[in-house]
Amino acid sequence: MKALVLGFGHVGKALAGILPDAIEAAAICTRNGAVLNPVLDELLAETDNRHLSHSRAFAAMDPLDAVQNLEYDVLVDLTPTNFSDAQPSTTYWRTAFERKKHVVTANKGPLALHYGDVTSAAEENGVRLLFEATVAGGTPVFSFARHCLKGAEIVSAEGILNGTTNYMLTQMESGKTYAEALLEAQQKGYAESDPANDVQGFDALGKAVILANALFNQDTRYADHMPQGITEITVEDISAASKRGECFKLIATVDESTLSVKPQQIPKTHALANIGDAWNALTFYTRHADAVTVKGRGAGGLPTASSVLNDLWELHG
Amino acid sequence: MKALVLGFGHVGKALAGILPDAIEAAAICTRNGAVLNPVLDELLAETDNRHLSHSRAFAAMDPLDAVQNLEYDVLVDLTPTNFSDAQPSTTYWRTAFERKKHVVTANKGPLALHYGDVTSAAEENGVRLLFEATVAGGTPVFSFARHCLKGAEIVSAEGILNGTTNYMLTQMESGKTYAEALLEAQQKGYAESDPANDVQGFDALGKAVILANALFNQDTRYADHMPQGITEITVEDISAASKRGECFKLIATVDESTLSVKPQQIPKTHALANIGDAWNALTFYTRHADAVTVKGRGAGGLPTASSVLNDLWELHG
Repeated sequence: MKALVLGFGHVGKALAGILPDAIEAAAICTRNGAVLNPVLDELLAETDNRHLSHSRAFAAMDPLDAVQNLEYDVLVDLTPTNFSDAQPSTTYWRTAFERKKHVVTANKGPLALHYGDVTSAAEENGVRLLFEATVAGGTPVFSFARHCLKGAEIVSAEGILNGTTNYMLTQMESGKTYAEALLEAQQKGYAESDPANDVQGFDALGKAVILANALFNQDTRYADHMPQGITEITVEDISAASKRGECFKLIATVDESTLSVKPQQIPKTHALANIGDAWNALTFYTRHADAVTVKGRGAGGLPTASSVLNDLWELHG
Repeated sequence: MKALVLGFGHVGKALAGILPDAIEAAAICTRNGAVLNPVLDELLAETDNRHLSHSRAFAAMDPLDAVQNLEYDVLVDLTPTNFSDAQPSTTYWRTAFERKKHVVTANKGPLALHYGDVTSAAEENGVRLLFEATVAGGTPVFSFARHCLKGAEIVSAEGILNGTTNYMLTQMESGKTYAEALLEAQQKGYAESDPANDVQGFDALGKAVILANALFNQDTRYADHMPQGITEITVEDISAASKRGECFKLIATVDESTLSVKPQQIPKTHALANIGDAWNALTFYTRHADAVTVKGRGAGGLPTASSVLNDLWELHG
């Protein structure tokens, strides 16, 4: 199976390092152009040099040209998420679908903004669109729902889907202020220098929208919801909750008809209460098997790449 | 798809109640004989009467006759586990495989005693042997490993696989003695009147053997291992551990070459530490995605039936 990989950041580099013999990278497109297969080995040997992808001269091929013209079986979209218009990924995906190519993505944009359109386009062309890496990084949630909970029947799901805010809340439980916790999250590389996307809940909202759509066959959209973030939670709130045997978590909840992302006070015995630091977890409430929870790494190049690879294996069979 | 169901206890009755239209029970075999499809509806309508299956007159058909002669696609084995010789299930399975029928089982016996033989027999006949319900009840572990962690690559696994002992240890944490905790587990229906199988670790061992075989393609056998149970743990041990920030759990550990079932003292921050009462959980340590943990109901008719149904859906497609 041949993959055309768009993006060569943390996830792309990690994926390149773990691709099995059965799955070949036909080409990797960086923002500087496409790197075609003949020079890939050379490139991969040097991936320790993180500036490599920007300092080398690449074959002068625009990503859209590559999507349109190269020979491959599956387009792997590892470009950054864009919640404004989900471009240029949406165009890349449509082009791939029309060429009867599968799409595997870690980019959330097109799924959060127009899930129904992109899934229909895949279906109409008889190909698959898989997106395990878009939610909870290395924690399987979509393959889990598809293959492991069909007997149980999912009724609703709630989870911790943003590692940055969960790390901050965990730090605040040990007495740090919001500002101190944010600084530490930035120093650890969890939070961007502009942390709004995380702390205001927009990252978690994008994931919740994809979850709601995929689990309950909906077509709800990012723009139709407003998350509540953690910016107004103080260390005093957390300390008072702790005295009541409770803690604060930023929780995304989805079912057939509702979706919310907001901080919640939950008892310390709750399945999500002990999900600390940058871990993610999702609890599925089911008709036949009560609650089933899956917990894993919510981010990081290698765990996220492993979710991409799992989707590739699902296509490969 | 037509299923021949052997056994009509808690799991069988629960399964009968949730079978979708796409999967038909061709017959259900109780210890009194086989109930063929024409009278199933009548039987199911009365399943609230738990003595029904023993008080009615059934068609006089021996289970082996049914396995040999009825028309079905998949044999569903819900008979009690027998760790002595794994009979009569082993004979039923072989017969079904020779007739090119799939087997879905909640019975652990044949898998714990001669995994290689039964999996080879299925393979040679071009049919599948699925056993999600044998380990951790309603918690997906085998479908999870097969479909969700192929990208992550499992290196080892450790888990809490026996609900009875976990319930007892949780009770002892709140100050109850071993004897009090055992009595309570019996009153709740978790422990049998002879609790040896649970408290001495044999139930968890049978599950660990199946896990080791399925995850790492081995053929290790129940008789080659000796578990350490919880019978020597006192409430004083637990209280002393608690003061050190630790707790006792009966943990099964498997990797490519080792297998153990024994009580372990783990820090309260450990992923398995907050798995209380009769819940089960399994943590997979992976090459690419760090630790991934799944938690769910370890027993109960309906959760276990949901795992059986999930296997049936996997065959149905």
